[in-house]
Amino acid sequence: MSELALKAEKSDAADELAGVRSQFVLDDVVYLDGNSLGALPVAVPGRVEDVVRRQWGELRIRSWDESGWWTAPERIGDRIAPLVGAAAGQIVVGDSTSVNVFKAVVAAVRMAGEGRDEIVVDATTFPTDGYIAESAARMTGCTVRPVTPAEVPDVLGDRTAAVLLNHVDYRTGRLHDLPALTAAVHAAGAVAVWDLCHSAGALPVGLDEHGVDLAVGCTYKYLNGGPGSPAYLYVRSDLQSRFDSPLPGWNSHAEPFGMRPAYEPAPGALRGRVGTPDILSMLALEAALDVWDADGVSVGAVRAKSLALTDFFLECVASYVPSGRVESVTPVAHEERGSQVALRCADAGDVMKRLIERGVVGDFRHPDVLRFGFTPLYVGFADVERAARVLGELVR
Amino acid sequence: MSELALKAEKSDAADELAGVRSQFVLDDVVYLDGNSLGALPVAVPGRVEDVVRRQWGELRIRSWDESGWWTAPERIGDRIAPLVGAAAGQIVVGDSTSVNVFKAVVAAVRMAGEGRDEIVVDATTFPTDGYIAESAARMTGCTVRPVTPAEVPDVLGDRTAAVLLNHVDYRTGRLHDLPALTAAVHAAGAVAVWDLCHSAGALPVGLDEHGVDLAVGCTYKYLNGGPGSPAYLYVRSDLQSRFDSPLPGWNSHAEPFGMRPAYEPAPGALRGRVGTPDILSMLALEAALDVWDADGVSVGAVRAKSLALTDFFLECVASYVPSGRVESVTPVAHEERGSQVALRCADAGDVMKRLIERGVVGDFRHPDVLRFGFTPLYVGFADVERAARVLGELVR
Repeated sequence: MSELALKAEKSDAADELAGVRSQFVLDDVVYLDGNSLGALPVAVPGRVEDVVRRQWGELRIRSWDESGWWTAPERIGDRIAPLVGAAAGQIVVGDSTSVNVFKAVVAAVRMAGEGRDEIVVDATTFPTDGYIAESAARMTGCTVRPVTPAEVPDVLGDRTAAVLLNHVDYRTGRLHDLPALTAAVHAAGAVAVWDLCHSAGALPVGLDEHGVDLAVGCTYKYLNGGPGSPAYLYVRSDLQSRFDSPLPGWNSHAEPFGMRPAYEPAPGALRGRVGTPDILSMLALEAALDVWDADGVSVGAVRAKSLALTDFFLECVASYVPSGRVESVTPVAHEERGSQVALRCADAGDVMKRLIERGVVGDFRHPDVLRFGFTPLYVGFADVERAARVLGELVR
Repeated sequence: MSELALKAEKSDAADELAGVRSQFVLDDVVYLDGNSLGALPVAVPGRVEDVVRRQWGELRIRSWDESGWWTAPERIGDRIAPLVGAAAGQIVVGDSTSVNVFKAVVAAVRMAGEGRDEIVVDATTFPTDGYIAESAARMTGCTVRPVTPAEVPDVLGDRTAAVLLNHVDYRTGRLHDLPALTAAVHAAGAVAVWDLCHSAGALPVGLDEHGVDLAVGCTYKYLNGGPGSPAYLYVRSDLQSRFDSPLPGWNSHAEPFGMRPAYEPAPGALRGRVGTPDILSMLALEAALDVWDADGVSVGAVRAKSLALTDFFLECVASYVPSGRVESVTPVAHEERGSQVALRCADAGDVMKRLIERGVVGDFRHPDVLRFGFTPLYVGFADVERAARVLGELVR
């Protein structure tokens, strides 16, 4: 057994989260794509079956009350809240991330007030955020200014209405400085909107602590909610009365069953709701969140293991992969690293295909990036060592 | 056995759709709330289990290709298309009805062009359509003009951009004249947007035949897709190149995995997509649509039985319920009736509670309406007779 394999074995033996792996359905594949689609939690299939067969099949319409369907968006929001450092009553679940970005950016511009007509957007963002911000700008009389996160402080000013940023870059895995950037946005009198898709469930976010205004995120990556599970929207409690949604659907009405012709927004976070929530996907997510209730599972523990995993992966890659064959584009500094490692590699598309054939699943990001996500709840150190070893064999 | 019970027995024996009932999970309750939440099709639980356990649990990320997840919105749209009289390639499934109303109304205003700044909206609409139309108007520099559908032709003019109408009124069950109203909208040079929530799957819609421009609908009523199953958007093929979405998410990009900073819309109906589709709810819907493939099941057959059921219900109510105790607000004329009967009744809330206790499930619409929906795929004539008989016993 190699030195690194021995080290992996030791680290797995000492890993306090190692037992959590049994709460997921996994096989002998090394699954490093949980930053795209989280693995299936063991609790989910039974819950979904109950939702379909009993709640829908037997109780039918009664389930909107009796099975808690109607209140699911805010109830599940409160389950996500502690994972992103938010007190209860500030998150609702529903719709896709893109739709929530639209709600958040338009609402942010409306909060910012007169004379502020520029939306600053991370130029390296996952594309949909940029597309949606352009639409929000067009529909609110603003312009979009794309800059890298590092340039954000320099472009803020009296005209800045809102700033839309990614907590972790989807491509490089770079973790941006949420506290400092939020403070800079606030110093300029603008509204900070954070996209947490690639950080929530993998590292501490601290929404309340850092005074973030609005945030959105998906639930199918590190929260393991399942394919296309609904996204969420955070509206800080003191801003909720000023949250003016561009999608004022009946679910966010103060009296949804009053069937009144005039819209009157509900108080609180549920002002972010729109239409009837997709119950099957939403309750699958609820079951998936149970894993966070297990003893010893916390965002802090997850973050510590995540950094140990990515450190170890970089160490293994350095040892197994011929020098110069791949280049990490993920920052070395812990405070700048999310829970993934991205390796630039000229023939990345082909390499990823062969990795997958060998049982190491990551993904390929056009044009030249191998992306490996590390979900500490179910990825172990032996997985990491094997992934790097197979990569080394393939590219040698 | 009473005369009406005998008549019910004879009608059930002659009913060519009677066998379809076995494709649904039903008990001894008379379920007349399928216009709110359709009953569970027998095919759904097994399909959902496969999606969860095998597609997500075993194939994980590979399912986006291998299980056809990525193309589900347009594939399932093509399954709905024949049910609303549309050729393939014009419908995508995804998001809630409210979100689709927003897409459709904004896109309609943009299609209508300069100088047209009024959105005419059915004043008797299900409220969310009105709320969302108001938001669309606010964000496109338009005003909303609420009128009853009968008044629509009188208010159309050079300033009309779009007209948002309901095919069937959610409260009264009145079926509006889609061909004539669409023609009137077109004669005024405006864009017709139809909400099919209460008609699709219950009666012929004829979108292509009548030249409807844009349409939206939900899938959890007469299409039995399950609680909060995704809605759909129809964009007539010749308008697709002009469909300018206010929610241009990455799923509607011409090259979604190109991760390009500039948005370029895909051709065709999938321009109506936004973010990652909720696969669990979507594939449950796909399984639910299988029932339409059975021998003898067609929208025509469903419509014929629907009218026979509602006729018979009105006949039974007239016989069993003391004269004057309830008053039907649903039109008598077949060409003005959807697939529900709404009875005005001063103590409707209390009466519906007691009906449900007696195994007859309809719903109550504030302040004084008993609403009974008839899904011909699983409601029989004996159900109808029993519902009216129990109602008569309760209010006598």
